[in-house]
Amino acid sequence: MEYSLEYFSAAVETAVKNLSFPSTAPRLFEPVRYTLESGGKRLRPVLLLSVFAALSRRDIAEAMNQALGIEIFHNFTLLHDDVMDKADLRRGRPTVHRRWNENAAIISGDAMLTYASMLMSKCPADRLAAVNECFNTTAMGVYEGQQLDMEFERRMNVTVDEYIEMIKLKTSVLLAGACSIGAIMAEATPEISEKLYDYGLALGIAFQLRDDWLDTFGDPAIFGKEIGGDILNRKKTWLLITALGESEGELAAILAENPTDHILIERVRGVYDRLNLNERCSALAESYSQKAIEAIESIEMDADARRFFIELAKNASTRSH
Amino acid sequence: MEYSLEYFSAAVETAVKNLSFPSTAPRLFEPVRYTLESGGKRLRPVLLLSVFAALSRRDIAEAMNQALGIEIFHNFTLLHDDVMDKADLRRGRPTVHRRWNENAAIISGDAMLTYASMLMSKCPADRLAAVNECFNTTAMGVYEGQQLDMEFERRMNVTVDEYIEMIKLKTSVLLAGACSIGAIMAEATPEISEKLYDYGLALGIAFQLRDDWLDTFGDPAIFGKEIGGDILNRKKTWLLITALGESEGELAAILAENPTDHILIERVRGVYDRLNLNERCSALAESYSQKAIEAIESIEMDADARRFFIELAKNASTRSH
Repeated sequence: MEYSLEYFSAAVETAVKNLSFPSTAPRLFEPVRYTLESGGKRLRPVLLLSVFAALSRRDIAEAMNQALGIEIFHNFTLLHDDVMDKADLRRGRPTVHRRWNENAAIISGDAMLTYASMLMSKCPADRLAAVNECFNTTAMGVYEGQQLDMEFERRMNVTVDEYIEMIKLKTSVLLAGACSIGAIMAEATPEISEKLYDYGLALGIAFQLRDDWLDTFGDPAIFGKEIGGDILNRKKTWLLITALGESEGELAAILAENPTDHILIERVRGVYDRLNLNERCSALAESYSQKAIEAIESIEMDADARRFFIELAKNASTRSH
Repeated sequence: MEYSLEYFSAAVETAVKNLSFPSTAPRLFEPVRYTLESGGKRLRPVLLLSVFAALSRRDIAEAMNQALGIEIFHNFTLLHDDVMDKADLRRGRPTVHRRWNENAAIISGDAMLTYASMLMSKCPADRLAAVNECFNTTAMGVYEGQQLDMEFERRMNVTVDEYIEMIKLKTSVLLAGACSIGAIMAEATPEISEKLYDYGLALGIAFQLRDDWLDTFGDPAIFGKEIGGDILNRKKTWLLITALGESEGELAAILAENPTDHILIERVRGVYDRLNLNERCSALAESYSQKAIEAIESIEMDADARRFFIELAKNASTRSH
């Protein structure tokens, strides 16, 4: 059994290419194919397949429908999020509602959610109830996270705890759910499934904190995006929330002044630097990577499987793109 | 066992009122509650419960989760349809995207679809796979129907067969699916479940054809809406499609002329009258009611259950509102 990102993600790519869709209204699935073929990290299906492989030592083809289901669900949330955020670009290409229109994005997204559910259900009868329940609970958590994220946009008094709770729901439960479903498919005990859930949850928080960090402190040449977008959008990231709480009104005053883009980024970064948020954000992200690694310490698995999960967890909080 | 619309729909109303939702992001569910409490015919859960009762003679409480699931799914489709159609009113109240905003309508709709799926899955393990599959296939059919409906808006050459296929998907498969799930919950054989599917399918077409008829020939005092909305919107109903095909260019010329609302309705109705579409549309709808009744002829059930299904089928094509 090979444990590498390349191996698992290549298997997912092939399976995505071979997906077939209902044919009565083929235009319904054009945006679906477009979205799925525009790539991305495939992190969720990779997690699901690697957990399945590590716990069962069986052929990952057995859990491929669920892996595709989780990837399609993730892409459905991006599709609807892009409509809600009025985003123009996703992975360097026009978003679905720009390339087609908003209605196509809404209805094709709906079809993706149901299609994800169909793929999830393609599993042995003895695991159907558990897979289903985990998938639906996970999905509901993601919507709750998205709802909280939208509510936070209109609030200036969001606390760090609230922020962590929000990203747990919006980002982490899906990684956690992917791990759990992999464990359920491998017929692991509920205890093991729960530990892997905790692994995914901590991994997701590390991943999101690093995302916030990269947007402000990343190297644009490697990150592949302009730096400072979150600051310009006044996005309630860990950095902004912490600085609002600790800068004694300074950051709030800068935001209220509303200077030009370049000056705004510079001055906000000045506040972040004084509060040492660069290192503190990194340290916090790394502590979650560590939590992830500890969550699976007691689970028996091959050495190269464990190495893979440790690498993945470390990478979440140290990656440069 | 009581077989009446009032009995089944009252049971659904009570169950809707007692629904509880996750509490982490309560605002996510405000539009859900608003949508569900604004009433409607509850036709789909009534079908599901009545089929369950007729085939099992057991307490309808046993199938209530699935009945609620199908009603929530239906309301989810209305919620997203209203966004796509930019509709202002639904059942006499502002639509969700008007009362809140478009983003609330999108994300709350997504949550409704997953919530419907959760309720569907609350069923004995031996029926879970069948219920799930029927629900997902039905949902996919509804999106395909909605997609075709949107595509038809931009086409002038839609045939009557294409129209019937579209309303089958957009409206009828959900009634058919409701009947099937009721049958599955009652542990009926696949043959019986299929006959009830056909009953729901024919019932749905009768229902939709009567809807088209009412919008043009109905009595506004009883119908509760202005007459002629479909004509003004140039909606591709059975009436418009048939008249476009049979009026030798006359209807197309009237539409191209684009006269004022009142004149447009009068002249289009003039064409419909000359082609005798009032009677022909009624006769076609009634033929589908008849088909529905025949579909369940060979199924054994109590006399008052059969009477209920026959009444429901006849009412679909003869109702005045």
